[in-house]
Amino acid sequence: MKTFGYAVDGPDSKFRTFEFERRELNDDDVLLDVLYAGICHSDIHQVKNEWGNSQYPMVPGHEILGRVVRVGSKATKLKEGDLAGIGCMVDSCKKCKFCESGDEHVCVDTPVYTYNSNERESSEPTYGGYSNQIVCKERFVVKVSDKFTNLEGVAPLLCAGITTYSPLFRFKHLCTPGKKVAIVGLGGLGHMGVKFAAALGAEVTIISTSSSKEADAKKLGATKFINSKEKGAFNKHVAEFDLVLDTVSAQHDLTEYLRVLAPFGSYIIVGAPPKPYDLAAFTLLNGNKMVVGSGIGGMRETQEMIDFCAEHDITSDVEVIQASPETLETAYDRTSKSDVKYRFVIDGKSLKPQQ
Amino acid sequence: MKTFGYAVDGPDSKFRTFEFERRELNDDDVLLDVLYAGICHSDIHQVKNEWGNSQYPMVPGHEILGRVVRVGSKATKLKEGDLAGIGCMVDSCKKCKFCESGDEHVCVDTPVYTYNSNERESSEPTYGGYSNQIVCKERFVVKVSDKFTNLEGVAPLLCAGITTYSPLFRFKHLCTPGKKVAIVGLGGLGHMGVKFAAALGAEVTIISTSSSKEADAKKLGATKFINSKEKGAFNKHVAEFDLVLDTVSAQHDLTEYLRVLAPFGSYIIVGAPPKPYDLAAFTLLNGNKMVVGSGIGGMRETQEMIDFCAEHDITSDVEVIQASPETLETAYDRTSKSDVKYRFVIDGKSLKPQQ
Repeated sequence: MKTFGYAVDGPDSKFRTFEFERRELNDDDVLLDVLYAGICHSDIHQVKNEWGNSQYPMVPGHEILGRVVRVGSKATKLKEGDLAGIGCMVDSCKKCKFCESGDEHVCVDTPVYTYNSNERESSEPTYGGYSNQIVCKERFVVKVSDKFTNLEGVAPLLCAGITTYSPLFRFKHLCTPGKKVAIVGLGGLGHMGVKFAAALGAEVTIISTSSSKEADAKKLGATKFINSKEKGAFNKHVAEFDLVLDTVSAQHDLTEYLRVLAPFGSYIIVGAPPKPYDLAAFTLLNGNKMVVGSGIGGMRETQEMIDFCAEHDITSDVEVIQASPETLETAYDRTSKSDVKYRFVIDGKSLKPQQ
Repeated sequence: MKTFGYAVDGPDSKFRTFEFERRELNDDDVLLDVLYAGICHSDIHQVKNEWGNSQYPMVPGHEILGRVVRVGSKATKLKEGDLAGIGCMVDSCKKCKFCESGDEHVCVDTPVYTYNSNERESSEPTYGGYSNQIVCKERFVVKVSDKFTNLEGVAPLLCAGITTYSPLFRFKHLCTPGKKVAIVGLGGLGHMGVKFAAALGAEVTIISTSSSKEADAKKLGATKFINSKEKGAFNKHVAEFDLVLDTVSAQHDLTEYLRVLAPFGSYIIVGAPPKPYDLAAFTLLNGNKMVVGSGIGGMRETQEMIDFCAEHDITSDVEVIQASPETLETAYDRTSKSDVKYRFVIDGKSLKPQQ
């Protein structure tokens, strides 16, 4: 079916309008009208081919809130009119032990990503959420509660939300009342991390390079703030935190940050700096510490996350834009500079041919 | 009380006989005659001041099996005639939350180590197990079962044993029947790792740079062997292991080894290479993997380990030596070259003034 979106044609190209075909619905597919599509920092990495695996034309977008407008005959979970979300994946092998347990994001055969990837059956390229509609296997679509009053803030939950929810809930025993949690970086990921950690009852501290974020950190649910640019910033906080969630993708000194982690604590990284970290073994041996990587989450957990957010009235703080080549470019520039509180979201109503 | 042992006077010195005073027993102390003292690779690092914190004269030795010959008036656990063991620590603050839970090895005030350290009260230097007797707070002495038939193999349990037992039991859910465990390196630590992992029922694979170790690996309880020097050695083992226990202190490429770890798996390091590892974030993000450091264990767990070993008839494979400046030097040379199966142990009977 004829679909309208925004695409780039190469790493140095600007966005342009793009008309393309989505497949007709299979029995297990659902069709969504896109209500909101978040702009994730990883969209920028892929548009600019910074991970070296980009395919063009590329329609980014993997934080998608939509309204179900049609369902295949074998759909069981969703019906016309439902709110629904699509995140980073649209398919996987569905047979390996990880897929079987709902952890499709670590599928042994690699998941099919929502854009910049290829369909398993047809090998057709996948196109993401910067588009007016999307067809997706129902299994990879979460049902979104009608309880949400702030729909524009729901879209970023599908990536920024699950990326921070998953590790905090995996290590929930370190993120409860009485436990101290530090969130490193207050951006799209970090601001969700604060909300989840605070909702779980932990005492939350934000560690940021920018003291201008202190007031905001506290509004979001943090009680303390550390400016990591201050000399000896960590000296008073050695071994203080039971869990650290590091959301920073800029290069930084992991060994220095690990000083603030308590013995038996978990240091979770969800950002990917361009160069490898230097990691001295003694940094982990002394205090039996761990560094854990975490990337998004499976469909089971993504549904849990959305339900938790509906229950606790948690959404992302967003700035809504009307799509055009110019507004997308500005949003990308500002996101690159961390000049957004805390996510840009494209209004789905603007995803239609310009008159 | 007058004590006899072997000491070095500096990083380039040879061992010499050394007479020194141990304190008289306090109420909470016990006195052991040393039956066997293991030679740990970390003795060599400290004798040679490779960690930069050495104090001389130094009497090494933190793998000590002894016989209780006297106890203080407040001793509750041990009595004259008991077998007993002392590992890497002889004191700690005993008040912090970690000490309170029996995890004295991560004491916030740093434990007092068995040698190359200073007593909390007196600031006197501590002298280790290459000596005929040792006085120690009863809390830091484990009771050793009479069930052991091979006493000479018990001493190394106090360091090599607990160092490998602790992480395998911390992550026991990844080291059960049906799980695949890889042990990297087959030396003093690795050979204990195989025994514990096999005792827990996991399928154990040894990863070693030396194919000559394959037969031994299988005798010790491994069912598979990977020669990491072979080109593309890991290509057939990508994401195969639920848990990897890396015992290697020589520099190696962590990113390459992490390929063999399964999603959600734990990669445990107990060795400390001289230079930091290069760790690319994506190596952990893809597959939600973790790198965990682990150093020895607390007194609670050390006692559990000794009891487990008695129950399962697990001891270290050792080569017993009679102490002299020459035999110690040879043992150090051969340990440095990994030319020992798998630990040298000093016979306590030889720890007396030479006639």
